[in-house]
Amino acid sequence: MFYVIGLGLGDAKDVTVKGLEIIKKCDRVYLEAYTSILTVGKQKLEEFYGRSVIIADRELVESGADEILENAEQQDVAFLVVGDPFGATTHTDLVLRAKEKNIKVQVVHNASIINAVGCCGLQLYSYGEVVSIPLWTETWKPDSFYDKIIENYQRGLHTLCLLDIKVKEPTLESILKKKKVYMPPKFMSVAEAADQLLQIIENKTKENEDKSSISSSSLAVGLARVGSDDQKIFVCSLSKMSKVDLGPPLHCLVIPGHSLHPLESEYLSQYADDKAELEKLNH
Amino acid sequence: MFYVIGLGLGDAKDVTVKGLEIIKKCDRVYLEAYTSILTVGKQKLEEFYGRSVIIADRELVESGADEILENAEQQDVAFLVVGDPFGATTHTDLVLRAKEKNIKVQVVHNASIINAVGCCGLQLYSYGEVVSIPLWTETWKPDSFYDKIIENYQRGLHTLCLLDIKVKEPTLESILKKKKVYMPPKFMSVAEAADQLLQIIENKTKENEDKSSISSSSLAVGLARVGSDDQKIFVCSLSKMSKVDLGPPLHCLVIPGHSLHPLESEYLSQYADDKAELEKLNH
Repeated sequence: MFYVIGLGLGDAKDVTVKGLEIIKKCDRVYLEAYTSILTVGKQKLEEFYGRSVIIADRELVESGADEILENAEQQDVAFLVVGDPFGATTHTDLVLRAKEKNIKVQVVHNASIINAVGCCGLQLYSYGEVVSIPLWTETWKPDSFYDKIIENYQRGLHTLCLLDIKVKEPTLESILKKKKVYMPPKFMSVAEAADQLLQIIENKTKENEDKSSISSSSLAVGLARVGSDDQKIFVCSLSKMSKVDLGPPLHCLVIPGHSLHPLESEYLSQYADDKAELEKLNH
Repeated sequence: MFYVIGLGLGDAKDVTVKGLEIIKKCDRVYLEAYTSILTVGKQKLEEFYGRSVIIADRELVESGADEILENAEQQDVAFLVVGDPFGATTHTDLVLRAKEKNIKVQVVHNASIINAVGCCGLQLYSYGEVVSIPLWTETWKPDSFYDKIIENYQRGLHTLCLLDIKVKEPTLESILKKKKVYMPPKFMSVAEAADQLLQIIENKTKENEDKSSISSSSLAVGLARVGSDDQKIFVCSLSKMSKVDLGPPLHCLVIPGHSLHPLESEYLSQYADDKAELEKLNH
């Protein structure tokens, strides 16, 4: 059997009882470690599970499906994923490869940021399409996510922005030399995301002033380490968000829709550094 | 401390290790039992937890916040919610009432249908706004959810349709007589939801033929008991969906966007009763 087990978002104890029982009995356990991270590392997980865990990096997951699934017709193999198993396309693909090999698959769900973002008080039923914000480089500054945020905003829907993670990315130099050297891991912060959004707003506004419907004074919600004991939520204007430091990763950013339900405003106000300012931002 | 603990979607063992530890040590534990249900009842949960659980019905949750939160400044009180704590407005409200009373609040997240719906293979990042489909009566047939499905569809986004649940609803007669008599619990099936959608499509098409962009032959995904051992996923046309029986509750329905990613089509085809038909439905 091939088990795909969600670990949730915080620490080792966020695994479900069902998930933990399966992990303990499996022959091999892989930990997917490049689309997301927990607040604890491999060692803490191994101590908690009382067994060894194999790190599945990007190369192994994307081109080593045969290795991961080896003997899973007879043996029990678990593949652990931070959040919920269906958060990333690569995991869906792995399940399909298992089924092709006639390996039985069982999924153990858990919280993902897609639903846990509800903790900021904006109603889950009022979110539109999720967007991913990539880390810009000097020469690569894609901005297509902006249009999706605006579409959501104009329909009165909130946008959850997932922020870029770079783990085990080969350096450009190493790609050219065909010898793998990896860049240090990099996790985008809410400040960086807000800063990129502000740059896009500035450019778009120059092009066509009235097309832009969010501005530097629009409401933004920054979230850090959702589901962990030191989770942080911060509510302020987009321009102020570009200067805040919410601490260690993972971060995500929410751009609320053009109007809020009174209960949403009341909930958000807990996290506003300046409640009077929040009133103004709320329209 | 006031703990709000998500139980996930399947059975007792879908609680997280963190959640279970808290439940065991609390002075009082409430189980919210009207916005959703597990595949197991109160008794199974009590056996698994090794402690008693108080059922919190609609009346208690909506008007008994003081009772639930009593002494939570000194004592530990847990409020258990099927799925994730932030799925329903009433839970958000309860957290706000706790904070007003200066009671500390801790949330333990878990899977909700909002993310677990990923199990059908449609990418979570390609869902638009979630809609709720209410059970129609003879005289009350609201259809505003249809426009949201169409908006999502036309943007290429999938729609998760949550289906109506009626638990402890007073009968009309009992409201008039001011003596509470409750209707038997009622959980909407995918067939009922598909049937209501077909009726709306028929009416809308009469009004203005080309406005309608989903039809009786559009693709639909029916899901039942997501996260449990006997979970069922069924992929067919909307008209066929109005005749299928996916068994006991809870059900939900997904209307995919106007085009699918190849990996999404491949994944869905596992659940199609007629793969050749699926090809046609896929556009």
